Amino acid sequence: MTLGHLDVVRRARNLYDEVVVAVLINPNKTGLFTPEERVALIEADVDDLDGVSVMTFEAQLLVDVCRTTGAGAIVKGLRGETDYAYELPMAVMNRHLAGIETLFLPSDPEFAQVSSSLLKEVARYGGDVSRFVTPAVAEALRERLGKD
Amino acid sequence: MTLGHLDVVRRARNLYDEVVVAVLINPNKTGLFTPEERVALIEADVDDLDGVSVMTFEAQLLVDVCRTTGAGAIVKGLRGETDYAYELPMAVMNRHLAGIETLFLPSDPEFAQVSSSLLKEVARYGGDVSRFVTPAVAEALRERLGKD
Amino acid sequence: MTLGHLDVVRRARNLYDEVVVAVLINPNKTGLFTPEERVALIEADVDDLDGVSVMTFEAQLLVDVCRTTGAGAIVKGLRGETDYAYELPMAVMNRHLAGIETLFLPSDPEFAQVSSSLLKEVARYGGDVSRFVTPAVAEALRERLGKD
Amino acid sequence: MTLGHLDVVRRARNLYDEVVVAVLINPNKTGLFTPEERVALIEADVDDLDGVSVMTFEAQLLVDVCRTTGAGAIVKGLRGETDYAYELPMAVMNRHLAGIETLFLPSDPEFAQVSSSLLKEVARYGGDVSRFVTPAVAEALRERLGKD
Amino acid sequence: MTLGHLDVVRRARNLYDEVVVAVLINPNKTGLFTPEERVALIEADVDDLDGVSVMTFEAQLLVDVCRTTGAGAIVKGLRGETDYAYELPMAVMNRHLAGIETLFLPSDPEFAQVSSSLLKEVARYGGDVSRFVTPAVAEALRERLGKD
Amino acid sequence: MTLGHLDVVRRARNLYDEVVVAVLINPNKTGLFTPEERVALIEADVDDLDGVSVMTFEAQLLVDVCRTTGAGAIVKGLRGETDYAYELPMAVMNRHLAGIETLFLPSDPEFAQVSSSLLKEVARYGGDVSRFVTPAVAEALRERLGKD
Repeated sequence: MTLGHLDVVRRARNLYDEVVVAVLINPNKTGLFTPEERVALIEADVDDLDGVSVMTFEAQLLVDVCRTTGAGAIVKGLRGETDYAYELPMAVMNRHLAGIETLFLPSDPEFAQVSSSLLKEVARYGGDVSRFVTPAVAEALRERLGKD
Repeated sequence: MTLGHLDVVRRARNLYDEVVVAVLINPNKTGLFTPEERVALIEADVDDLDGVSVMTFEAQLLVDVCRTTGAGAIVKGLRGETDYAYELPMAVMNRHLAGIETLFLPSDPEFAQVSSSLLKEVARYGGDVSRFVTPAVAEALRERLGKD
Repeated sequence: MTLGHLDVVRRARNLYDEVVVAVLINPNKTGLFTPEERVALIEADVDDLDGVSVMTFEAQLLVDVCRTTGAGAIVKGLRGETDYAYELPMAVMNRHLAGIETLFLPSDPEFAQVSSSLLKEVARYGGDVSRFVTPAVAEALRERLGKD
Repeated sequence: MTLGHLDVVRRARNLYDEVVVAVLINPNKTGLFTPEERVALIEADVDDLDGVSVMTFEAQLLVDVCRTTGAGAIVKGLRGETDYAYELPMAVMNRHLAGIETLFLPSDPEFAQVSSSLLKEVARYGGDVSRFVTPAVAEALRERLGKD
Repeated sequence: MTLGHLDVVRRARNLYDEVVVAVLINPNKTGLFTPEERVALIEADVDDLDGVSVMTFEAQLLVDVCRTTGAGAIVKGLRGETDYAYELPMAVMNRHLAGIETLFLPSDPEFAQVSSSLLKEVARYGGDVSRFVTPAVAEALRERLGKD
Repeated sequence: MTLGHLDVVRRARNLYDEVVVAVLINPNKTGLFTPEERVALIEADVDDLDGVSVMTFEAQLLVDVCRTTGAGAIVKGLRGETDYAYELPMAVMNRHLAGIETLFLPSDPEFAQVSSSLLKEVARYGGDVSRFVTPAVAEALRERLGKD
C-alpha cells in the first residue's frame, strides 16, 4: 500500500461512513510479503481511520465480496488515462453482474505516477521510496530487502 | 440532455439521497433552446425521480454552486479516455479550491459514444436521434428544427 | 469467441463475400479448451453464416495465412484507443511485409468493453457471462468449469 | 488534400472497385481555397486513378451522401489514438442511422503526424510543405500565399 | 505563465547554459493582458535565473525563431498523453523544416493538471489560483479582474 | 537494436557531446542473443559515431548508472501516447531519486510503430525485417534463426 492508496482510502472515508479495503490474494504469486503481512501493514496504515476495515479475498469475484460485506459501491483510485482503459471493462462487468457501481476517484497528482510495482522494483535495487509510503511500510521494505 | 446523461443522473440517485442537476448557461452562445427551455426539458426528463432537482448557473465556479446547494461531491459521467483527460484538470482544481471531490461514473457503453453536440448536428440535418433522447426531447428537436 | 467477435465476423461478411476466421494456436499455453474444441465452438457459432469458414494457424505470420487462403485484407474489431495502440504496429508491419491492409471495424459499443480473457476469469469464479457469448459457448463454459 | 489523404484514397481504391472522395463544404468558413478550387485540386491529384471520383456535400449527413452515391461503406484514414477517439462516435452514429459501416485504414506512418490544418499554417508563414503535398497543391499554395 | 511553466524553464536552464522563452503573440486574440504586460510578467518571474531571456514572436514559424536566436533545440513541458498527441505533429514538422529537435520534459506531477486557460477561467470567477502562479502574477490577476 | 533506436542515439549525439547507450540485462530472460552478443551488435551499429559508448547494467537503478557514468540526463525515444504513459512514472521516479531529468525525443515516424519485440517475432516466423535493422543485425538474426 502506497501513500496514493492511503489517500484514496481517506478520501473514500470522507464520502462514505464505512470503507472496506479488499485485498486480492493471488495464490500463484509469492510476493515480497505474505498475505498476512500485507494485511497487517495495511491495518497499521489505516489504524487511525474510524470506519475503515481490511479484508482479503481469493478466487472470488469482487462483486461477491461486495455482496458479502454489504458494500453498495466500489471506489477505485484512477491514476491516468491508460489506467481508466484497464479498469473500465471490469467496472462495466461488475455493473452487469450485480448492479454494483464503480466510482472512480482521481489520484492526487502527487501520487498519480507511483504504482506499488514500481516502488517495489526501486526498493529492491536500493532506491529510497520513503516519500511514497508510510514509515511502517518503508521500515518493512528495508528489513525484508536487508538494506540500511 | 441525452439518455446517457439521464442514465448518469439515475445511477447517481441510486447512490445518493439527493441529486442536483446543475446546468451551465453560457451567455455567449445562443443554442437551439433557451436556458428556460433546456431546464424545462430536463425537469420533464427527471420528473419521475424523487430527490432530483434541476438548477442553472452562470459566471460562477462549480464549487460555489456546490457550496450554495450544500452538495458534498460532484458526480460526472465519463465517456472515454479522452474525456477523462479533459475532466481531470477540473477535478483536481475543484478539490484544491474547496476540497470537493469529483466522482466519475463510467457511461453505460450503449451511450458512451453519444454526445449532445453530435446529436444536435445529426438532428439538424434530418437524422433520427430518438433512440438517444427521451420522447419529449425528440419531439422538441423535431418542432424546433421544423422536420417531420 | 464472444458475441463481440461474432458481431465483427457478421459485419465483415456483410462487406465481403468470403470471410475466413483465423484462430491463432499458441502451443505454449493450455487454455480452457483444446484447439479442436475452440474451432468446433466457433464453427457452431458461425454455422448459419454462408461464406464464413474457420481455420487455425500456428508458428506462422498472419500475412502468410493471408497468402495461403488468398485473403485480400485483414479485418479486425477495434475495442478502444488502447486497443488501437496495440494493433497499429502489427498493421503497419503486415502492410510492409506483404502489402496486405488491415481494416479496423469499431466494436459495437455493447461489446466494446468485453474481452475473452475477462469473460474467462469471470466465468471461472462463477459469474454469469451468458449475455456476452452464444448459448453453445455458455454451455461449454459451464460444463468445463463444473458449475450449474 | 495532403499526400496522406491521397495515400488513403489509393489504398481504398486497391480494396474497392469504386471510390468517391466526398468533400465537406462548410459555408461558414472561408478557407484558403474556394470549394471549386479545392475540388479542382483534388481531381487533379486523383486524375490517374481509375474508379475514383470527387464530389462535395454541404448541410447533409454523410450517410445520406452514401445513400445517394450508393456507397456501401465509409473508409477513413486514422492518424493516431486521439484521432480514433474523435472518429468513433461518428462511426457508431452512422451505423445506427443507416447501417453503414466505417472502415478505418491506418495512415502510412510517414504521414500520420501531418494534418492539413498544420500544413496550411506552416505554408502561411513561409515553411516548405512540398514533401507532404502533390506538386500541384504546393504550386497552388505558393501562388495563393504570394511566396516564391 | 504558471508555476508549471516556470518549473520547465528552470529545469531547462539546468540542462542548458542559455534558455530563451519565446512567447507567441496571436494578434487575433485580445487576452487578459497585452503582449507587453505578458512579457513583463514573465521577465519578472525569471528575473533570478541567469541565462534566461524572454522574447515574443508573431506570424512566424518557431523554427525561424530558433534560427534567429541560434537555439539548438526546442524544449517543451509535457502535461499528459493527450498533450503529447497535440505536440507530436509540430515536433515532427519542426524537425522536417529545419532539423531542429523538440525535447519533451515531463511536467512536475504537481502542475501536470494545471493549464493557463483553466487558471484564467477560475480566476475570472473569483477562485484563488495563487498556489499555481508566482505572487506577481497572482497580484496582476487580482488587479485586472478587480477582485479582492 | 532497431534503426529506430539507432536514430535516437544519433540524434541524442547531435544534442550532446557524449552519449552512453545503457543496455539492461535481465538475468531471468534468455533472449535470442547473449548479453555479450547484444553489446557487440550495438557496438558495431554505433561504431561510426564518435562520442557514443555502450555499457550494460543489471540489478541496478538507472539513476545509479547515471551517477557512475556521470550522465547529466536520460534521453529516451518516445514511440506513441501509450509509450509515454509507460515511461512517465519512471521519469518522475528518477527525478525524485536523483534529480536526473528524462528528455523524451519523439521517434522518427518511420520507426514509431516498430518495437524490437515485434521484429523478433516477425523474424522468428520468417518475415523479412531488414528494412528496420542494420545489415549486421539482419545477418545475425538470419544466422541465429537458421533462415536464408
